[in-house]
Amino acid sequence: MPSEFDLIRRHFTRPARHADLSVGDDAALLRIAPDMQLVVTTDTLAAGTHFFYDVLPHDLGWKTLAVNLSDLAAMGATPRWATLALTLPAVDESWVAAFAKGFFDCAGRYGVELVGGDTTRGPLSMTVTLFGEVPEGQAITRAGGLPGDDLWISGCPGLAALGLMSLQNRIRLTDDSRALAALHRPIPRVEAGEALRGIANAMLDVSDGLAGDIAHLCECSKLGARLDLEALPLAPLIAAGVDKPLARQVLLAGGDDYELLFSALPEARDILDVLGRKFNLSFTRIGQLTEEAGAILLVEGPETSPRPLDVRGYDHFASPD
Amino acid sequence: MPSEFDLIRRHFTRPARHADLSVGDDAALLRIAPDMQLVVTTDTLAAGTHFFYDVLPHDLGWKTLAVNLSDLAAMGATPRWATLALTLPAVDESWVAAFAKGFFDCAGRYGVELVGGDTTRGPLSMTVTLFGEVPEGQAITRAGGLPGDDLWISGCPGLAALGLMSLQNRIRLTDDSRALAALHRPIPRVEAGEALRGIANAMLDVSDGLAGDIAHLCECSKLGARLDLEALPLAPLIAAGVDKPLARQVLLAGGDDYELLFSALPEARDILDVLGRKFNLSFTRIGQLTEEAGAILLVEGPETSPRPLDVRGYDHFASPD
Repeated sequence: MPSEFDLIRRHFTRPARHADLSVGDDAALLRIAPDMQLVVTTDTLAAGTHFFYDVLPHDLGWKTLAVNLSDLAAMGATPRWATLALTLPAVDESWVAAFAKGFFDCAGRYGVELVGGDTTRGPLSMTVTLFGEVPEGQAITRAGGLPGDDLWISGCPGLAALGLMSLQNRIRLTDDSRALAALHRPIPRVEAGEALRGIANAMLDVSDGLAGDIAHLCECSKLGARLDLEALPLAPLIAAGVDKPLARQVLLAGGDDYELLFSALPEARDILDVLGRKFNLSFTRIGQLTEEAGAILLVEGPETSPRPLDVRGYDHFASPD
Repeated sequence: MPSEFDLIRRHFTRPARHADLSVGDDAALLRIAPDMQLVVTTDTLAAGTHFFYDVLPHDLGWKTLAVNLSDLAAMGATPRWATLALTLPAVDESWVAAFAKGFFDCAGRYGVELVGGDTTRGPLSMTVTLFGEVPEGQAITRAGGLPGDDLWISGCPGLAALGLMSLQNRIRLTDDSRALAALHRPIPRVEAGEALRGIANAMLDVSDGLAGDIAHLCECSKLGARLDLEALPLAPLIAAGVDKPLARQVLLAGGDDYELLFSALPEARDILDVLGRKFNLSFTRIGQLTEEAGAILLVEGPETSPRPLDVRGYDHFASPD
């Protein structure tokens, strides 16, 4: 049976051209350009909590890195390096090889170098810590929102939640391919995130459901929001084969989506239109930020009056549609 | 029951004075001084593999950070920041509070700021990624050893292994206090590691047993070594109540010690004597590096001829003492 050292050497040692020292010593040595800030994020995926045991190892390798890339994207940062702490119940080398391939497919796609890690015996889980760079002072935090900013969302949050429900046989979709792809191989919005520097005032990635993440953005920016229910990008969800109430529910309360939620001045609408086309990514304007801190209101059309969004209880939301 | 966000806020949010942005956004923002290299390491501790479920959470919090500090110490780096990915089977707030206290006790002692993390539901484990700085070009790698270098070890490797054997009732010690302290609350040799910049040619921390770690150093430096069995610091092990063969075995094949193994020119002996007294830490000269790559020989005294060290099989080592 191969040892931990053999495994690392065989599957996780690739040249890291932009590191002074990489896998194989006590620590890695990296150099940050003098006018850049280092951006650091970490995320764990644990079997049984974040994925099923029968997930394809290639998909899991991809997703392990992708969920972290999404956090860097949400800062407007450029990804550079990662460490991977991998806990395995047993050494199944073909599993490890496929996992490593998925991981490096994602790393190669987004210019990330693996510079260190740890392999441990235990219940299956993986923790990536990801490092990026951003020009000094240009990171997009959650706190920079301004009253009157438009609220925008990229892509189609909710698809991953539909994929999960379909896997669990809780719903039957007419077409589950996009939903399963969103769940298993999320596309981190790295290029879009970088392009939003100087455009987005506040940004985060949607990983716990849009409703909760709007609340996070408002809390950090000390503002409120009005969310236009009719503007939500439900079409791809409905196209997958669910009705409008369920589409709204998974969009607002689903998880695992890794889209960008951001605020920007109304003057940015044209440039966002251009960027969306450039990256072949829909940016949907779903509301505005308001002065009243903590007040998050749902607007359902000109005829009805706004009502508060119950963020915590949103998974019990049932729209009278 | 407190949510993940409440837990983080209550126990893991402390001011990070040397970070531009810390816990609470998608990522942390850090600034590296222009003439410094960033040093990065990561280590996981998993329940059942690295510790027993009944370990005191305060000790575990300390050790989680300490084992990573030891890796930075082995590079001669100055620790700065950490992220913590904590996977918990259930939210036991008093456990989390004690764990956090142990973690921050260690962080405060060594000047580390927690700048990010992740809390996950799953089997108990924790992954720390630790960041330090080292003046450009001054990091001490495993590869810098020179033929003729003395081989040195700090402190007393083997104590932690005795502590573990005592806990498992495999041995009965006359005094297990130092052994248990070494196991539960290892002291990373951070100040000594920094002071060895410009003195040690190659260095690593001993975490898998001295025999294996000498082999790692030799492999990276493309050299061999002669290890003087009579020079090994066995006294504290024998004082704990074990015989010489077992003392040798745990020193050479034990784990979990986090002492520094390094090579230095013979001219450095005097300064190492001074440093040892300054840090109240024993540095023991245990052998030399030799030209012959991969040849690691045990020398047992002037009367016997050197014999090869069987690194992999060292836990089956039995000295005819």
